[in-house]
Amino acid sequence: MQIKNPYLMFLGDVPDQLAAKTAQGIVDWRRDWCLGQIRLPGCKADLGIPDMTIAEAVAAGARTMIIGVVNAGGTLPDHWTAQIVEALDAGLDIASGLHMRLGSNPEIRAAAERNGRSLFDVRHSDRVFATGKGTKRTGKRLLTVGTDCSVGKKYTALALEAGMRASGFDADFKATGQTGIFISGRGVAIDAVVADFISGAVEWISPDANADHWDLVEGQGSLFHPSFAGVSLGLLHGSQPDAFIVCHEPTRKTMRGVPTPLPTIQQVIDLTIECGRLTNPVIRCTGIAVNTQALDEGAARSLLNEISSAHGGLPATDPVRFGVENLVARIAEEFGGPAEGGNAGNA
Amino acid sequence: MQIKNPYLMFLGDVPDQLAAKTAQGIVDWRRDWCLGQIRLPGCKADLGIPDMTIAEAVAAGARTMIIGVVNAGGTLPDHWTAQIVEALDAGLDIASGLHMRLGSNPEIRAAAERNGRSLFDVRHSDRVFATGKGTKRTGKRLLTVGTDCSVGKKYTALALEAGMRASGFDADFKATGQTGIFISGRGVAIDAVVADFISGAVEWISPDANADHWDLVEGQGSLFHPSFAGVSLGLLHGSQPDAFIVCHEPTRKTMRGVPTPLPTIQQVIDLTIECGRLTNPVIRCTGIAVNTQALDEGAARSLLNEISSAHGGLPATDPVRFGVENLVARIAEEFGGPAEGGNAGNA
Repeated sequence: MQIKNPYLMFLGDVPDQLAAKTAQGIVDWRRDWCLGQIRLPGCKADLGIPDMTIAEAVAAGARTMIIGVVNAGGTLPDHWTAQIVEALDAGLDIASGLHMRLGSNPEIRAAAERNGRSLFDVRHSDRVFATGKGTKRTGKRLLTVGTDCSVGKKYTALALEAGMRASGFDADFKATGQTGIFISGRGVAIDAVVADFISGAVEWISPDANADHWDLVEGQGSLFHPSFAGVSLGLLHGSQPDAFIVCHEPTRKTMRGVPTPLPTIQQVIDLTIECGRLTNPVIRCTGIAVNTQALDEGAARSLLNEISSAHGGLPATDPVRFGVENLVARIAEEFGGPAEGGNAGNA
Repeated sequence: MQIKNPYLMFLGDVPDQLAAKTAQGIVDWRRDWCLGQIRLPGCKADLGIPDMTIAEAVAAGARTMIIGVVNAGGTLPDHWTAQIVEALDAGLDIASGLHMRLGSNPEIRAAAERNGRSLFDVRHSDRVFATGKGTKRTGKRLLTVGTDCSVGKKYTALALEAGMRASGFDADFKATGQTGIFISGRGVAIDAVVADFISGAVEWISPDANADHWDLVEGQGSLFHPSFAGVSLGLLHGSQPDAFIVCHEPTRKTMRGVPTPLPTIQQVIDLTIECGRLTNPVIRCTGIAVNTQALDEGAARSLLNEISSAHGGLPATDPVRFGVENLVARIAEEFGGPAEGGNAGNA
């Protein structure tokens, strides 16, 4: 599976900007892939990129129309069908983050078939995976883990990809969730895989690679989240990381969606190492990423210093606010800098 | 989902006894549910129960024909179809442990529809589960965990059900795998659930119950198995056990199917408590079940004594060889004996 870019971003007539959060994430990280947006009357979201017709997008080189919006119930509204069929007839593939599969709509399915186009449902995984092997693969891997869900694991991995490439590292973001898949054009929505194949799917996402290559694997959930810890553990075993970054949101009091209290950063470090050793005996924590949005700059910097001191001097940063240089420097220090002729910035 | 008993056991023409391992397990644990077996010419398996025609089984009260055999590739051979259709026409439901779904065969599907009969594919789970909540439920729960896959977790839970019921406890085996589902008539093949819903499915399997009621949850995999640990962790969090039994096979050198070395019993106890505390802060180990098949009786008893001493006097037994009285006694000692008017032996 490889979603071809550039993209035309389909927003339908969603009622607010939040419903287009996935589409906005794609624009934020892959502005050059996003030629324009197409909106139906009444649409209240705006990605800040040019409005385009399907014909204009095709003329500009678009390859895929992305449905990166959420709709109440995850279904595809009937009145979106006409434009999706039009896009298929114009030669575009369609990629969707809706729960409902594109192919379950007979008109869309027929249009894809008659035009030989692909339909990507990034929330679903139809590939048959092997079960995990647990054997060591070549190349280096970093996993972002969390004290909870939605604490910046994807953002941190993407920021590290940009930062490491800028420093000359050969590094690739590896998507494990739907927004990440749109951003990288590939990946597996790991929470949608059948339970027996979680670690096997991650082994498939991050295969053997050159010794100097880094896969930066997007984490999911938390080992301490009672709903999703199984996914997080399979992801840890399958990605067999050499290094991991703990992501944290300091204002959160309970785990997302449940009354369970948040673990400490140290608990996450300890359990990640204890469990991660099974498939990588030299796993280590190389940094902490903190969402400091709720604090002013001075308080944010103090908090980061405090967190760094409390964890043996591990680099701590807010990747959004202060960048990831200290995280990249630590990786270079512990594992060596980029190889000669590194693969800088080929997004 | 409730598979209605009594059963007629369909063996097809499988080439050896091993291919009927699931069917044999059902007969071993639910002899009174298994009225007879039906075999095609050339069948090399024999469950040691009467051969019957479909008409005889229906006359004797059979409700479901069970396909508890494995076939090369997990498919349903075409020459089995006629008898399956005949059984549906005679008023039986069909339950199958094959990978291939019964309803994917058009003749079987049509026969089920015209007779209003149910088709159960116990390896698949079509139910939509909620994600796990992690909140404490009423009643008591015991989970069997393992140093590896296939070390007696199902057997131990079933033996405990029988032993606890014989002692007057209100106790139910809760199936999480296909053989267990046939044996209890219900349950969820937890390794076939979508990853996001592992713990949620287990919460559904073992809901709120009376304070004196015990759910004995069949464990799967191992927290130390690189292929399946995610399933094991979701199962631990979802079942929120008050007590767990570690199951172990002392001759095993590496984890099943992979080169990973086996963990020690103590490692399993420690990590199970560490992770299990998330949804049950008072989780504790109440015993060790060891498969001593490879040893003579004297050596087996010495090994069990040695294992018990090495783990603070926890009761250790081989449930097959020496029963589970010491495990039941420990549960009574730690959690109290059966309530007045307990639910003894209502399999």
